[in-house]
Amino acid sequence: MIKAAIITIGDELLIGQVIDTNSAFIAQQLNLAGFSVAKRVAVGDVYNDIKNALDQTKQEADIILITGGLGPTADDITKPLLCDYFGGKMVVNQEALTFIEHLFANVFKRPFTERNKKQAEVPDVCTVIQNKKGTAPGMAFFEEVNGRKKIFISMPGVPFEMMAMMTDDVIPLLKETFNPSKIEHRTLLTAGIGESMLADMIEDFETALPTHIKLAYLPNYGMVRLRLSATYNETPNDTTEVDTLFNTLQNLVHVYLVTNVDETMEQTVAKLLIANNKTVSTAESCTGGYIAHLLTTKAGASAYFEGSVVSYSYHAKEALLQVNNDTLLTHGAVSEAVVIEMAKGTLKNLGTHYTIAVSGIMGPGGGMPDKPVGTVWVCVGSQQKLIQRKFEFRFDRDRNIKLTALYALNMLRQFILTDDSN
Amino acid sequence: MIKAAIITIGDELLIGQVIDTNSAFIAQQLNLAGFSVAKRVAVGDVYNDIKNALDQTKQEADIILITGGLGPTADDITKPLLCDYFGGKMVVNQEALTFIEHLFANVFKRPFTERNKKQAEVPDVCTVIQNKKGTAPGMAFFEEVNGRKKIFISMPGVPFEMMAMMTDDVIPLLKETFNPSKIEHRTLLTAGIGESMLADMIEDFETALPTHIKLAYLPNYGMVRLRLSATYNETPNDTTEVDTLFNTLQNLVHVYLVTNVDETMEQTVAKLLIANNKTVSTAESCTGGYIAHLLTTKAGASAYFEGSVVSYSYHAKEALLQVNNDTLLTHGAVSEAVVIEMAKGTLKNLGTHYTIAVSGIMGPGGGMPDKPVGTVWVCVGSQQKLIQRKFEFRFDRDRNIKLTALYALNMLRQFILTDDSN
Repeated sequence: MIKAAIITIGDELLIGQVIDTNSAFIAQQLNLAGFSVAKRVAVGDVYNDIKNALDQTKQEADIILITGGLGPTADDITKPLLCDYFGGKMVVNQEALTFIEHLFANVFKRPFTERNKKQAEVPDVCTVIQNKKGTAPGMAFFEEVNGRKKIFISMPGVPFEMMAMMTDDVIPLLKETFNPSKIEHRTLLTAGIGESMLADMIEDFETALPTHIKLAYLPNYGMVRLRLSATYNETPNDTTEVDTLFNTLQNLVHVYLVTNVDETMEQTVAKLLIANNKTVSTAESCTGGYIAHLLTTKAGASAYFEGSVVSYSYHAKEALLQVNNDTLLTHGAVSEAVVIEMAKGTLKNLGTHYTIAVSGIMGPGGGMPDKPVGTVWVCVGSQQKLIQRKFEFRFDRDRNIKLTALYALNMLRQFILTDDSN
Repeated sequence: MIKAAIITIGDELLIGQVIDTNSAFIAQQLNLAGFSVAKRVAVGDVYNDIKNALDQTKQEADIILITGGLGPTADDITKPLLCDYFGGKMVVNQEALTFIEHLFANVFKRPFTERNKKQAEVPDVCTVIQNKKGTAPGMAFFEEVNGRKKIFISMPGVPFEMMAMMTDDVIPLLKETFNPSKIEHRTLLTAGIGESMLADMIEDFETALPTHIKLAYLPNYGMVRLRLSATYNETPNDTTEVDTLFNTLQNLVHVYLVTNVDETMEQTVAKLLIANNKTVSTAESCTGGYIAHLLTTKAGASAYFEGSVVSYSYHAKEALLQVNNDTLLTHGAVSEAVVIEMAKGTLKNLGTHYTIAVSGIMGPGGGMPDKPVGTVWVCVGSQQKLIQRKFEFRFDRDRNIKLTALYALNMLRQFILTDDSN
């Protein structure tokens, strides 16, 4: 496979205040196009560090994609550095200049300064890639290293400018320049089983995989995603090989299988609700609205999501969900009896087909001898039937909240699958 | 300053499936402790790529922190590779084994397998760092390169395991091994002003800073954090110099100042509520519970947070907040009239001192000519008084949700500060 490397440039990446989402996007696009990413490097706005990164990555990859450091201020040194590195001199690119002038006149509605004009300058040894979303043009450089053709492409660091340039220009240019491998990915999500037990369960399958098909374990919040990636030199005539293996894998883990497409737990639940034309609500105590947030993260949530009650206090549970004060006093807020009443309250008030109710102790304080931190009661069900279950998580507050949300969504998913009314 | 490099390992980082948040956390912690990060590298679970990354980074940094690739499955090769690299052999670490057995028996409540036992094996040439949150132990290796002492520390890739190890063990070990610079950080948060206008406003201040004091702009979701970092070789006897400059900076930006400590908007609001002994509720449509989630992220939320109503549908707004059907039909859900009724409904039902109500169109669908995607109405106030404001955000769904939450919290903060009843 043709190998690529990604270099992101900017001091802000090295002090940890910015999470590098550009690299993930670039890597995704490269993989989808059949290129493999061998390495990602982040360096500061430091001449020698950038130069070293270029020297190293061109030994390790044929495609070197660079973002950042193209702004108009003094600390943005990428463009002059690339000009030196490839032995060019700076010239004004007329097409870029015309577009930047248009941006200032018609979009930003700000005066156009000398500093802005400099943004239209590019090294005369590059192929310019016009930036349709902003002021800094992209630049492609070609070089032969150890007898192999290498391409270096510098893109702006502003995510939406980079994204447009990547999909519209860079990927087509790379496909034209190289002959990428064809990769078929198949992904499934499991819940309720740890990575090691899963590995034991599918050990024979994994060992028997042909060398051009790889299996990856991607664990996250108590769930493990499994991904098969098959690499071919040419677009395969059919995908029977990887599909058959993926079917076998699904059968092996079927007890724990959540979904056989690359989606989140909440997307799986949303699709199930939409397919069955059903609605859901939530009654949340310890998760503080996080389950509702997950269910509304993707557009189109109003098709299945009515609303939620976040009843943090006793009073809120009584006022908004008609939980009995007696039940609260007798059993405590974190109890089977209370989550059942919370579930009944939302089902009645919001009239949804399904609901999820949760109450727990997320920590770090609030634990009791009989109800330690991490104790959670979850109730899911419909107007006809409720089921409830106690969990005992043992992590920090943030993780306990996220685990509770995902396990509760998984309980609802299982409930819907076995619901006779569908 | 002592330089550090971060190596993250895992195929998932190179296909763009996972956004690398670990690097940002590690970089933050290193910077806070007085170490500078020169480079971040991500490589796949590939022997030679990991080895090359080790070879390169030890020429460029004295501290090499490594995460990932320590799992129990076949694709996790970091541990045997480090064992080879530093010329050791694998031995069972008794302390780690005892802890892993305890985890399986008492926390995971799952059978303990041979595969899990292997997780307690470590190279005999490393110093073991016990993992208090999971099964994969951390490992520290020491080597002299070009006459300089180098330390390599391998940590698990699971974020909460890595985070605990980083703060509890790795940072203290690094401080003990090296003599880091002493850095005094002072951080403030602004809202309602862009980065470039802020830069113009404080240009003279910034230009006049002594060379050992740096100013960083850290923009995030429409707010800009400013951080002064003063670097000293020895712990300074007093911090008057940086404190005086920080006071000047606060005065320069005081109109936009949210807080002069390094905390989030929701923490600032929580502290204000606690200080005034007041409670809050929320009525959320477009944010889907995200504001409630923010307010309950930190422990102790029950002191000021009663609960929320997430009223996604018309029906939920009517059933849970007594919004008039007429108001909804006349003005639409995203309107000044509706957020006012939502705010009144929560204040009445939950009896809190303050409330936040939001209704908007987060996109990508749902926009209308007079109410494009990003239109949001926010109402905040008390039992005595409400104020409302329209926002027009122009981003993607995720960013619109987060911006709405933060601007709404900022409106409440400003309301509380000018509330006569306090």
